[in-house]
Amino acid sequence: MTETGGHHIVIVGGGFGGLEAAHRLAAGPFRITVLDRRNHHLFQPLLYQAATASLALSEIAWPIRSLLRRHRNATTLLGAVCGVDPTQKAVLLDGGQRVSYDTLILATGARHAYFGHDEWEPYAPGLKTLEDATTIRRRILSAFERAEWQTEAQERRRLLTFAIIGAGPTGVELAGTIAELAHETLRRDFRHIDTREARVVLVEAGPRILAAFTEDLSAYAERALVRLGVEVRTGHTVSQCSADGIELGGEFLPAATILWAAGVAASPVAEWLKVPADRAGRVIVAPDLSVPGFPDIFVIGDTAHVSMADGRTVPGIAPAAKQEGRYVAGVIRARHDGKPAPKPFAYRNDGNLATIGKRAAIVDLGWIKLRGRLAWWTWGIAHVYFLIGLRNRLAVALSWLWIYSTGQRSARLITGMEAEPPERNQP
Amino acid sequence: MTETGGHHIVIVGGGFGGLEAAHRLAAGPFRITVLDRRNHHLFQPLLYQAATASLALSEIAWPIRSLLRRHRNATTLLGAVCGVDPTQKAVLLDGGQRVSYDTLILATGARHAYFGHDEWEPYAPGLKTLEDATTIRRRILSAFERAEWQTEAQERRRLLTFAIIGAGPTGVELAGTIAELAHETLRRDFRHIDTREARVVLVEAGPRILAAFTEDLSAYAERALVRLGVEVRTGHTVSQCSADGIELGGEFLPAATILWAAGVAASPVAEWLKVPADRAGRVIVAPDLSVPGFPDIFVIGDTAHVSMADGRTVPGIAPAAKQEGRYVAGVIRARHDGKPAPKPFAYRNDGNLATIGKRAAIVDLGWIKLRGRLAWWTWGIAHVYFLIGLRNRLAVALSWLWIYSTGQRSARLITGMEAEPPERNQP
Repeated sequence: MTETGGHHIVIVGGGFGGLEAAHRLAAGPFRITVLDRRNHHLFQPLLYQAATASLALSEIAWPIRSLLRRHRNATTLLGAVCGVDPTQKAVLLDGGQRVSYDTLILATGARHAYFGHDEWEPYAPGLKTLEDATTIRRRILSAFERAEWQTEAQERRRLLTFAIIGAGPTGVELAGTIAELAHETLRRDFRHIDTREARVVLVEAGPRILAAFTEDLSAYAERALVRLGVEVRTGHTVSQCSADGIELGGEFLPAATILWAAGVAASPVAEWLKVPADRAGRVIVAPDLSVPGFPDIFVIGDTAHVSMADGRTVPGIAPAAKQEGRYVAGVIRARHDGKPAPKPFAYRNDGNLATIGKRAAIVDLGWIKLRGRLAWWTWGIAHVYFLIGLRNRLAVALSWLWIYSTGQRSARLITGMEAEPPERNQP
Repeated sequence: MTETGGHHIVIVGGGFGGLEAAHRLAAGPFRITVLDRRNHHLFQPLLYQAATASLALSEIAWPIRSLLRRHRNATTLLGAVCGVDPTQKAVLLDGGQRVSYDTLILATGARHAYFGHDEWEPYAPGLKTLEDATTIRRRILSAFERAEWQTEAQERRRLLTFAIIGAGPTGVELAGTIAELAHETLRRDFRHIDTREARVVLVEAGPRILAAFTEDLSAYAERALVRLGVEVRTGHTVSQCSADGIELGGEFLPAATILWAAGVAASPVAEWLKVPADRAGRVIVAPDLSVPGFPDIFVIGDTAHVSMADGRTVPGIAPAAKQEGRYVAGVIRARHDGKPAPKPFAYRNDGNLATIGKRAAIVDLGWIKLRGRLAWWTWGIAHVYFLIGLRNRLAVALSWLWIYSTGQRSARLITGMEAEPPERNQP
């Protein structure tokens, strides 16, 4: 697909970084094409709420092309990129199409990773897409439904055991929300089981949960989780996942629902370009976020390895991706205008937030640390504020107020074909 | 699964009829079990809006068990019924379970039917479930996405042709809404195609659309559809459906998206009981809606053939199913209390409504006929009013006001694996 006129910037990926770059560049004298394998931008920080039946899918995702509608110089194309031809300056798609570029921005994100145990994926789904959220929601709700039928006590207990592997923000949010679902929301809905007997076990290999936070905030979060009824097992490595449950350090934990929140791997951009990557597969970019050896190609977001002055790397979170998108747009505009290159990219840490159920959260803004209800409201307001689109802000605010005041959840639908995880081995 | 105490009423199906019976009977001295293969009650009259990206799935469906939560004598079980053993008085489930009953109400509804052409289903999906709605939404939106890539004019035209087969309320609603989507909502979102060039073709074998309405209302609805840009082809029978398009009376219409709204068949209750059925597979019930020969088994809703005094049958619509559910609850209570049986079931026609896009509708209440904007508002208020649950009424009202005032649609998400219909034959 080739068109004439203007410097053509191709952006692969309509996540936080790609969209931010598109919005910034669309104001300039460029032709812009945004390619994504999905038709929607996803507000990933709230994905766990869709997975736990608090929000509808359409409350946290929007068609990319409608977000870019007002930019007449921006084209959105739905398609899966499978490679780059830097010599011919073209992006290659699954369907065999080629899209030529003058400048390329790769913002293709990350998927969850199983550290060499890909065979665990069917038993322990991760959470990155709307489909993942639908799968996890279905598994959680189906486990209660199956327990309601089950007359054998041991199997019923296994059906009511939820193991979450990895205690970063996603793992903590999932564990807290599942505990609330079991202990509050569903409490009066079943007749043969007491959903309050459900076990929610959060497993973490490291010494404490939410390791990105200070030790006291992390300890507070753990106490808040325990109050919600979550069993926190830090310092435990999972050695086996199956349809029956998980194995941690010699102990076997029977669990029908296993969720994976333990790690991510970057998209295969480094392989496409045959350039060096770090252990998570992220491309090691130059200080201006271009790829060494390919000045016309930039990599941003979760698939870029960006070093900071203190030797650490920029974290894989939405605000970082947005800052990178904005920065790269500035570099491209400066080049095009013949102006001197901006200073190297510097990440500004605007703060770190995590929520534990609907009453507690921790917030670290550097100059102030918050915890408890005030932190929860800060977290809630920040997230609603950053949601795109007036209507969705209203809808999400309405959903949350509803959940908060009634304990009910609106999106408790089991949909899709796969009703339960793969059959367990018969004993 | 057997429990002690009280007369046990098993209701199969949590649709309009089954739920109404459950609510009415729960006030009495009964144990009630509601079985459904899905965990949610679906507000089917608005399903076409979910299929056309106007409403989110969770705005038109609610967990059955949460709808029945306050009735402590009512149990909800998720399970697929595959037969009835009237001798042992038990319901049989796919998973091998048996549920015994004292009285059984079968309210298992209908599926769309292809009149001996089941091979058309992959090319022309029908609309009965949330999964159907997701599939149809994905196909409609994907067709526009694929057209945006397509450089060959003839194939682009095929991708932008939508054929809807059957001009009952569902077909008319789908055609009107797709026309609005193409001509208004998506108008500014694409760069290579003009979505206003999309063709929406509504095919009907009978002589006029919406045959359940009077001739003048039906003629008005046809004019309203034409104003929206729909091509109405009455008196045309479809003789072939394929990945390439449809054949009607010798003419071939190339169309990438084909939707089936031409007919339904009842669930296999008649086969389970080995009792007489009509041509649509509906059980021919006695005047008290019980099954002749099985006084303890009632059949209601879309799977029952109920004759009226004038020789016609009760229509397969939500208000009829609710009336039948209420009536059967009365019969069962009278029997239990040793009172005389109520008079035979008599259907009360509360009116007939259909909508054509977001500006026109037709309403026939018997004593008054409405059309145009006033009819649309009557239709909208009636539907929001009958929605279950305060929050959903608010959410749907909000969604509609948004769509009505901005022309935008909130739920334009392509999800699920299948991105497009089965591959077409290569020319």
